[in-house]
Formats: sequence, C-alpha cells, structure tokens
Amino acid sequence: MRCEVPLDKAYLLMNHGPVTLVSSAAGGVDNVMAASWTMPLDFDPPKVAVVIDSQTRTRALVTASGEFVINIPASTQHDAVLAAGHYSGQNVDKFAQCGLGKARAAKVAAPLVEGCLAWLECKVLPRPDNETRHDLFLAEVVAAWADDSVFSHGRWHFSEDGPTSLHYLAGGQFFMTGTPLHGRMPEEA
Amino acid sequence: MRCEVPLDKAYLLMNHGPVTLVSSAAGGVDNVMAASWTMPLDFDPPKVAVVIDSQTRTRALVTASGEFVINIPASTQHDAVLAAGHYSGQNVDKFAQCGLGKARAAKVAAPLVEGCLAWLECKVLPRPDNETRHDLFLAEVVAAWADDSVFSHGRWHFSEDGPTSLHYLAGGQFFMTGTPLHGRMPEEA
Repeated sequence: MRCEVPLDKAYLLMNHGPVTLVSSAAGGVDNVMAASWTMPLDFDPPKVAVVIDSQTRTRALVTASGEFVINIPASTQHDAVLAAGHYSGQNVDKFAQCGLGKARAAKVAAPLVEGCLAWLECKVLPRPDNETRHDLFLAEVVAAWADDSVFSHGRWHFSEDGPTSLHYLAGGQFFMTGTPLHGRMPEEA
Repeated sequence: MRCEVPLDKAYLLMNHGPVTLVSSAAGGVDNVMAASWTMPLDFDPPKVAVVIDSQTRTRALVTASGEFVINIPASTQHDAVLAAGHYSGQNVDKFAQCGLGKARAAKVAAPLVEGCLAWLECKVLPRPDNETRHDLFLAEVVAAWADDSVFSHGRWHFSEDGPTSLHYLAGGQFFMTGTPLHGRMPEEA
C-alpha cells in the first residue's frame, strides 16, 4: 500500500543510491526517463539533485512546469527501466512504450509511476547556471510516498524473495540491492 | 592490484550509487569523511557532484586545496566507514581513528584510502553559489583507479564470497551491492 513518508525521512528513499525514473508533465503531455545521476542534497526541507540532459523531452517538460517526480523502481521493472532509458519521449508515448502505468501525484502535475517502491514529488529550485552548464537540477521534495511492504518507519526492509530497488551500471546491467549489513557504530565499540 | 581506469569509464565506478569516503589534504593535514550524497555529473571529461557540510574539517581542506579523492570502500570496511562518518577531523587524526591506511595519489595531494575498491582523484570546479547555499561541490575527475579483482574492462564483477561495494541507509545500516541482473535492452526485444 502506498503510504505517505514524512518529509524529514524522504532522503532515506534515495540515500542508498538506487536507479530512478523521473516523470514529468506539462501542457497535457507527460514523459518518463531513467536516471542514475541523482542524490539527496538536504534533509529538512528535503532537497535533491538530478542530471537531466538538455536533449531530452523530460528536460523541456521540467523546464516548462518546474516540477518532476523521482520514482524508485522495483527490481521486477528492470526491462521497463531500460526501455525508459532507451527510447526518446520526442517520438513516442514513453509510458505506453515502456508498459508503465500512471497515478496522480498530490502536489505536482507529473504522474507517479505505478509499480514503483517509492516516490518523491519535487519542485525545481531555479539555478540557471547549473542547468545550462551542467544539466544539473536542484529541487525541493514537497511530498513523498513509499510502498509500506518494503519501506516503513524510515527503513527499507526487503524480503529475500520479494522485489528490491535497483542500482544501474551500464549496458543493461543492474545490481539488486543486496544483503543488509549492520555496522558497529563507534559509540558501541 | 590497483589499475588505472580510463577517464571515460570513471563514472562507472559510482554509477550504481555506492557509499564513498572523501579524502582530502592541505597544509600537511589530511582527513577522510563518509559521503553517500555524491553522483556522477558528466562522462568525458568525467565530473562528479558531492555534498560536503560546511562544518566539517574536510570542507576546510577541500576549500584550501581545491582537491579531493572519492574512494569506494569495500564491504569489509563497514565499521571504518561508520567511524569516518561519526568522528570529526577537527579533533582527531581520522585515518588513525578509523584504522584506515593511506597511499599516494597521482594528480592530487589528497591520499587514496587503502583497502578501497576504487578511487577517483578530483579537482574542484569552483561554483561559489552552490558551495555556499547547498554545500554542493562540483569537480572534474583527473585520474581514476580500481582494484582489478572487482572492476576491469569497465565492469564491476563481484564474486559471491568476496567484498562488494556498500550502499548506506542510516543508523549503521548498509546494504551490500547485490545480485547482478541483466535486463533486456529494447533492441533485443
């Protein structure tokens, strides 16, 4: 079930470096692209950074709307993530082409991608120099959601035979998010 | 064995979102901190983005030197990563405190952290507005290295019983980099 994540916990949805899908909408058109180059930028209010290439349809929609959603796909969606990274929204309806469904977001016009594990609704913090020179967008997270079967109480908890998040290398190769490992905090030493 | 990674492949060392150690040096002092908030920013020449809090000793050393190294720690180094995230270099010799060794880098004064899986030597691209407002540093990668037992020919290849890279959540909890998963690229469909 999709449950709201408190904004001060939103960074935890991305802190472990998963591949993401960035969804966007403007003027009645929507799109989705794959993005590994994204990271948290601040805790509270939560902010994120993401690279959005100037040649993409997503870039035009994000620039027009000042909004996007960062979706954290499930490992079962690996082929849809590759399709979202392969096709251009200039030519096709990416959601249909990738077999991805849409749900309504709470605070932005960009849709949530169905079947994902978590969602961060974002509003762009305009930084024209970053955008022009580095294709780098900074944004504030205004709402966050997670599937409570894998994320609750500020923690990811993947089951052994269930979906995990994904980490992308290149050329179609992902890694699943692996075994949890609890380190010993220094104060416990 | 530590082998040079061609600069146009350097982004692959970070593309899957591992936790990192950021090492720095200036005026005969060095330091190391843990950082999950880092990502690739460009392919060739390779660039990276990393958040370095204004209160850290690392921030002072990076500002003074304009250089740092992003080190990708091995899963066996989990307690050292937590120690590097816990202690402040204002008060202690972080390398000694964390039990981490140093090796000489090729193009920057900051040391490479021994025992890590990969290393990206970086020179800061000054962006004062990002640094002041967001603690966000952009840098160009000027040399890159990887342990060829886990990364070669532009690919990570972890063995089942060997070390992997790590992904950090919070509160001492990591995930190991998990099972490889080869998606089907659209052109193969």
